[in-house]
Amino acid sequence: MTRLASPRPIRRLTDPNRVEILDQTALPHVCRWLPLASLADAAHAIRTMQVRGAPLIGVTAAYGLALGLAQDASDAGLAAAMTQLAATRPTAVNLAWALARLHAQLAPLPAAERAAAAWQAADAIAAEDAAQNRAIGAHGLALLKPLARRADGRLQLMTHCNAGWLATVEQGTALAPIYAAHAAGLPLHVWVSETRPRNQGLLTAWELGQAGVPHTVIADNAAGQLILAGQVDAVIVGADRIAANGDVANKVGTVLKALACARQGIPFYVAAPGSSLDFACPDGAAIPIETRDGDELRRVAGLDADGQPTQVRQIPVATPVCNPAFDVTPADLVSALITERGHCPASAAGLLSLYPERAQHV
Amino acid sequence: MTRLASPRPIRRLTDPNRVEILDQTALPHVCRWLPLASLADAAHAIRTMQVRGAPLIGVTAAYGLALGLAQDASDAGLAAAMTQLAATRPTAVNLAWALARLHAQLAPLPAAERAAAAWQAADAIAAEDAAQNRAIGAHGLALLKPLARRADGRLQLMTHCNAGWLATVEQGTALAPIYAAHAAGLPLHVWVSETRPRNQGLLTAWELGQAGVPHTVIADNAAGQLILAGQVDAVIVGADRIAANGDVANKVGTVLKALACARQGIPFYVAAPGSSLDFACPDGAAIPIETRDGDELRRVAGLDADGQPTQVRQIPVATPVCNPAFDVTPADLVSALITERGHCPASAAGLLSLYPERAQHV
Repeated sequence: MTRLASPRPIRRLTDPNRVEILDQTALPHVCRWLPLASLADAAHAIRTMQVRGAPLIGVTAAYGLALGLAQDASDAGLAAAMTQLAATRPTAVNLAWALARLHAQLAPLPAAERAAAAWQAADAIAAEDAAQNRAIGAHGLALLKPLARRADGRLQLMTHCNAGWLATVEQGTALAPIYAAHAAGLPLHVWVSETRPRNQGLLTAWELGQAGVPHTVIADNAAGQLILAGQVDAVIVGADRIAANGDVANKVGTVLKALACARQGIPFYVAAPGSSLDFACPDGAAIPIETRDGDELRRVAGLDADGQPTQVRQIPVATPVCNPAFDVTPADLVSALITERGHCPASAAGLLSLYPERAQHV
Repeated sequence: MTRLASPRPIRRLTDPNRVEILDQTALPHVCRWLPLASLADAAHAIRTMQVRGAPLIGVTAAYGLALGLAQDASDAGLAAAMTQLAATRPTAVNLAWALARLHAQLAPLPAAERAAAAWQAADAIAAEDAAQNRAIGAHGLALLKPLARRADGRLQLMTHCNAGWLATVEQGTALAPIYAAHAAGLPLHVWVSETRPRNQGLLTAWELGQAGVPHTVIADNAAGQLILAGQVDAVIVGADRIAANGDVANKVGTVLKALACARQGIPFYVAAPGSSLDFACPDGAAIPIETRDGDELRRVAGLDADGQPTQVRQIPVATPVCNPAFDVTPADLVSALITERGHCPASAAGLLSLYPERAQHV
């Protein structure tokens, strides 16, 4: 496996303009870059989760729009590209946010200028994401330091799904404070929840392994036992959407960890950029929860006896399955939201203290 | 796949005395009976989870002891067999209970009479288990009926792991009330939690399918979302051990569902026979939690593209894993305990109201 020189899951190449992504459906077993040559490639990559994670979905959609406009920059082409990209994943608000921002910038331009402007705008979104995550890391570190002083030996953290650099452009959201703490020399260990059915926890374990951060993978079911047995000092996760009242939509299974943290009296932190805040959404009940194909549950990917990538069917085809991809964690279970602007209580007042300019949207 | 005529996971054959078990590591894909010809076979079947579920472990150990005594019925042989069987699974108290009961019956006998007496005693334990589970079903049905009247359309239940007839001798513990409700004509549907890492939920789905009970398999992570979205009327699970104060040790992941039920204000029921009660154990903190091999997490069993049983390695060998097999649900999260004698609050007083004769052990 190649050790990545630059930890970014998407890279922009020029002359001609094109994009490559790290295929996250092949990790952690195979490290493979895939070219995105068209709008359809970008939409396919988002829908099949070759790229995943709310911020990276937004950036990939932005590059996808640029690829689409390079083919057809007419008003109709712009509208069709927007529709195609918006339909790929319904829960992540960053996608809608990135598309709305691009539309506002590109629609007023003459068609001939749109493609170049789209590339530039997509690059700007990527650069902004990287800068925001560095800020999230610094603000999160400020919350972890006092916990580290309380923890015996090393700080025991837990995370769910993957909210690292694979899910963003750099650093990650939930993992940014962990990387910052590791860089600051805080002794720590991360419990990594497998995150069925897509096993994004294995991406987190792979990332942490690359960075030399001590970690242990557990079944999602084990989180309650570890938290209630006092083996966890804090849980930190990302978010796919945060409602105006502080309710958090994140990968399915998140709320179970939040409930265990509340029972045990340990902090449950949510780290996300401002683009994950949806002030137009009053609370979690208004967030659409994506239900994905049952085959994600029925089939499991891995390596066969010869070390070759393969799949097994673990659930018979005739067995009915249901596969919601996200859940909603009520704001009162969230100890703090960590954004690029600082940390705040998970409440309307808390969010407005960091984002006063968005009060008009509430 | 053969549709089983008599739903029992273990069968006693005579002339000569021997035992066969349904290999639960092959289900739900392959329905295969395995002979147990020796004490070592029985210990292997328990340790590798070819049989599983606290009551069935106790019954299998009882037959294993009979098989062992048929070879060596001396005091030393009896002691060695007890030690070998007791070491197979540390959390299930039924195992210790069955062995202690057998030891009390067999030790005073002349060696020549022990093997025959052991077969008879093991048969008696199996018959008692079947009768107890029918009683658990009736008492559990009394709790479900009022819920069914409140539920719109059909009663929505959820269970975790497998506490059906595959885990016992007949009917099951958690599934006994569900089978009783189905037989009584209550419209119901069961959410079946996959139960990583061993996927015993697939055994539950297979059982429910055989019995014609409507059901849907979900990832363990989805339980919180379904419960908090009001799509579940009650959760019912089995137990591997219940402490004197009502704390419950059960398959890892159980406490996460109990926390969600408490948050939503819906009942969380635990169904288990009296043999799962450990009055000598003051509370959950005193229950040993078995940590199993990490390969259970690393490897997933299923069918390959040709429909043949196989395994894939989904977690790289170098990735550290931790695999606790059980968790403890604090008594205050349990709405009621259902036993063969009725139902009671999960507390010392509640348990003693059903088992007054065991007050001396508290």
